[in-house]
Amino acid sequence: MAEHPVLIGGKWRPAKVTDTFQAANPATGEKLPGIYPLSAWDDCDAALSAAADAANELRRTPTDAIARFLRRFAELIEAGKTALVEQAHLETALPASPRLADVELPRTTSQLRQAADAAVEGSWALPTIDTKNQIRSCFEPIGPVVVFGPNNFPFAFSGVAGGDFAAAIAAGNPAIAKAHPLHPGTGRLLAEAALAALRDTGLPLSTVQMIYKIDHESGRRLVSDSRVGASAFTGSRAAGMALKNAADAVGKPIYLEMSSINPVVVLPGALAERGGKVAADFASSCLMGGGQFCTNAGFVLLFDDARTDQFIDEVKNAFDAGQPPALLSEGVAKGLAYSVKTLVGAGANLLTAPGAGVKGARHPNALLRVTGTQFLAEPEKLQTEAFGSASLCVVARDADEAEAVLSHLEGNLTGCIYSDSQGSDESLYARLAPALRRRVGRLLNDKMPTGVAVSPAMNHGGPFPATGHPGFTAVGIPASLRRFGMLCCYDNVREHRLPASLRNENPNGRMWRLIDGKMTQDSCS
Amino acid sequence: MAEHPVLIGGKWRPAKVTDTFQAANPATGEKLPGIYPLSAWDDCDAALSAAADAANELRRTPTDAIARFLRRFAELIEAGKTALVEQAHLETALPASPRLADVELPRTTSQLRQAADAAVEGSWALPTIDTKNQIRSCFEPIGPVVVFGPNNFPFAFSGVAGGDFAAAIAAGNPAIAKAHPLHPGTGRLLAEAALAALRDTGLPLSTVQMIYKIDHESGRRLVSDSRVGASAFTGSRAAGMALKNAADAVGKPIYLEMSSINPVVVLPGALAERGGKVAADFASSCLMGGGQFCTNAGFVLLFDDARTDQFIDEVKNAFDAGQPPALLSEGVAKGLAYSVKTLVGAGANLLTAPGAGVKGARHPNALLRVTGTQFLAEPEKLQTEAFGSASLCVVARDADEAEAVLSHLEGNLTGCIYSDSQGSDESLYARLAPALRRRVGRLLNDKMPTGVAVSPAMNHGGPFPATGHPGFTAVGIPASLRRFGMLCCYDNVREHRLPASLRNENPNGRMWRLIDGKMTQDSCS
Repeated sequence: MAEHPVLIGGKWRPAKVTDTFQAANPATGEKLPGIYPLSAWDDCDAALSAAADAANELRRTPTDAIARFLRRFAELIEAGKTALVEQAHLETALPASPRLADVELPRTTSQLRQAADAAVEGSWALPTIDTKNQIRSCFEPIGPVVVFGPNNFPFAFSGVAGGDFAAAIAAGNPAIAKAHPLHPGTGRLLAEAALAALRDTGLPLSTVQMIYKIDHESGRRLVSDSRVGASAFTGSRAAGMALKNAADAVGKPIYLEMSSINPVVVLPGALAERGGKVAADFASSCLMGGGQFCTNAGFVLLFDDARTDQFIDEVKNAFDAGQPPALLSEGVAKGLAYSVKTLVGAGANLLTAPGAGVKGARHPNALLRVTGTQFLAEPEKLQTEAFGSASLCVVARDADEAEAVLSHLEGNLTGCIYSDSQGSDESLYARLAPALRRRVGRLLNDKMPTGVAVSPAMNHGGPFPATGHPGFTAVGIPASLRRFGMLCCYDNVREHRLPASLRNENPNGRMWRLIDGKMTQDSCS
Repeated sequence: MAEHPVLIGGKWRPAKVTDTFQAANPATGEKLPGIYPLSAWDDCDAALSAAADAANELRRTPTDAIARFLRRFAELIEAGKTALVEQAHLETALPASPRLADVELPRTTSQLRQAADAAVEGSWALPTIDTKNQIRSCFEPIGPVVVFGPNNFPFAFSGVAGGDFAAAIAAGNPAIAKAHPLHPGTGRLLAEAALAALRDTGLPLSTVQMIYKIDHESGRRLVSDSRVGASAFTGSRAAGMALKNAADAVGKPIYLEMSSINPVVVLPGALAERGGKVAADFASSCLMGGGQFCTNAGFVLLFDDARTDQFIDEVKNAFDAGQPPALLSEGVAKGLAYSVKTLVGAGANLLTAPGAGVKGARHPNALLRVTGTQFLAEPEKLQTEAFGSASLCVVARDADEAEAVLSHLEGNLTGCIYSDSQGSDESLYARLAPALRRRVGRLLNDKMPTGVAVSPAMNHGGPFPATGHPGFTAVGIPASLRRFGMLCCYDNVREHRLPASLRNENPNGRMWRLIDGKMTQDSCS
């Protein structure tokens, strides 16, 4: 049986193969039908050349046409929903409903449509006009974008349909998608829909390329190739850093979403007021989806008192009650076991059942505990990300120690503080929040971090090592589009040679532009 | 005689010295009075700690107070103008008037005032509010900013008073300035004014630190230290890359303005229509300030015809007419000689007098010539930046070759195209402009690149290696402030805990905020 072809230059063509692989059903361990290629560099090279050609064409393409493609793609994903959900469920063991069919797929199509709207409206590009000096600028497409999707969201963060993909295309760039090898069939179905949408809407067919798997060396060459504009990666810190080093060395922007333990702080007043509710919410957030979320709460800071012991007991009971959940792969289960071992080795006390003897893509839920003093003795190891349903309780002696613990945290995507509703935690909040704020992209109150709303105000980003730069977000339109723009200034350029967004007349009457220091939807006077 | 102290923690204190140095007058080669310290790492460490404390204080400081400091600093620079201009002239040989007194100093104070206005108005931070989901976000201070100023602008790009400094402070961050060792006395006077302005306006005195010189290893430690928020560097590619590598490895943002040859393209119609004027403008732009500008035109692409030979002759005559200009230092002169040698070694024909035998901080103006074919054979070496008054004429056979030449260009700050006024160059422009556009931050028509207006629409940036990321500009307010912000999202955070810019009420009635998808100066309804 021949392996599946790759999507390059607008065609499904045989891959230049160095090896092949099959996906497995993580729930059963059985191999799934379909042989997929591990591509040689030749495929990357061909994808880059095709994308570079498409980039030139897309620069001359009206944003309306780009938006039509994104919307048509969303329609075709909806039309193919049954097959997509079935395939993704087989390849990930994530529940078909509600997770895949009713949450993640609608999120994906909504992102594509929001990106389409932003592309047409045009304000994302921050058009700025100085009529006195005849200088004008805006963001323009940065060039072909390589998108590495993660294992845990087969649709919404997919390299060929997810948030980075939508943002890259909406900003006017072709995409080179690296499907995730744990769910190649899902990637294939999405890429088929993308190609059909390109055909239906007349966009260059090379606007979307997809390959399934490449070796590490090809990955590093890909993100640092001169034909690339930028790259986006969601995944592990080790893989992300290898790509970052390669891209940085040649000044190619790369946006990474890597590790995050997402600290939660529960203040004593909140615990006294509604400790049972907070424990239930915390456990439920930790266990949802096998804990396989970038924003999974892997760290909870508490204060040393009897109510805290009760809180930890309540969470432990919820953790124990869950069967070892089916994880995305045996690799994820092994990684989780290794991380738990690292935490225990650094002094954490494992409160739940050990993982030894559990087979396949499963690992028991893991709750661990250390004192603040212990944490401060091994702050680095005790921040090991345990991807899956594992959380470390850090019990601080007092406010001083709690502040010291927070001050030792690395950068994270999120940080939460629970406080009581009557104001008894207010002074402690005022003391601890600034230390947490500086270390997280999103600060929450009285709410678990696992939901990531697709809102213009969302920041799914944060200081290193959560991402590579604290000024960018992977979720949230229009901000996510700006990652894939280069700032283009026109100085004394004749008006007919300017892009539409910088000419005197407002191209759609809705675009916000900064004209002579004033934000306006008017044309230049 | 003891060496000058450094400014750390709000005090002039003795440096931890590993060596000392003196500045020289480049016009005479004579050493100038004043012994300055080469600081050991201890000084960097102390500056970082003081700045980290100041960063915490500044986060609680109203933007009005930050603006008052910036404005007071501008006033004190103006009050000290005579001494500042005299010192900078001695240390750089740049003309006291008009350059230093009438152009660069007013530019510097204008930048400080524009930054103050932007800080108070607040729209730079892109405040975004989603009332339905109760998610809000904006840019907040990134943390202490290390600013490395260049040799060629003792005021306007100074680490302690220039554009990066103003942007970092206006965004709410303390600055650690690395003065340029070619003009330490100018840096000292500026830092004295900054400290006085801090005193006058009640800002934390550690908001501004200044050291004079450090070794390479300390520089790398500085930009990658955990206490740093970000760094800004203007200077050579070699020094910039060493700092970039160190900062990138630990995910610390660094904004670099490095090498750029600033290609100019003169189309045949423009040459036929006004060749003499273009040649005069080109030569004048190249020779101004000894050619020591980031946007100096080091490369001009022409088409092979008789008028081109005449153009090159006219430029050569202008180059020959200038005495070897006084450069900023002997080092600059040596670097220029080395670059010219590299260009000649790669096949360029030196049309002007050779530099051998010229002594001190001087080098003859250098005009070189190659064919397009020669350029395409050695595109890398023939893009060697020759910092100073040196330019390479590349004469293309035809449009195909011209396009190929442009397609081999690295990233640059600027690119210019001169075309005729009647439309005869229009099709050639349409063909060549896209290739140039993608490789430059600022595209000009019929205008030399050496002027960099401080306009909101300016982009003083561009693709690597001109800078480290094509999405950022070092000049132009408010965009330059965003480099020094981290994106901070608040999810379900109680209103009294939000920063003023994200509360329901518009804090000043003038700030533009994106509320529920609409850009508005209103409060939340």
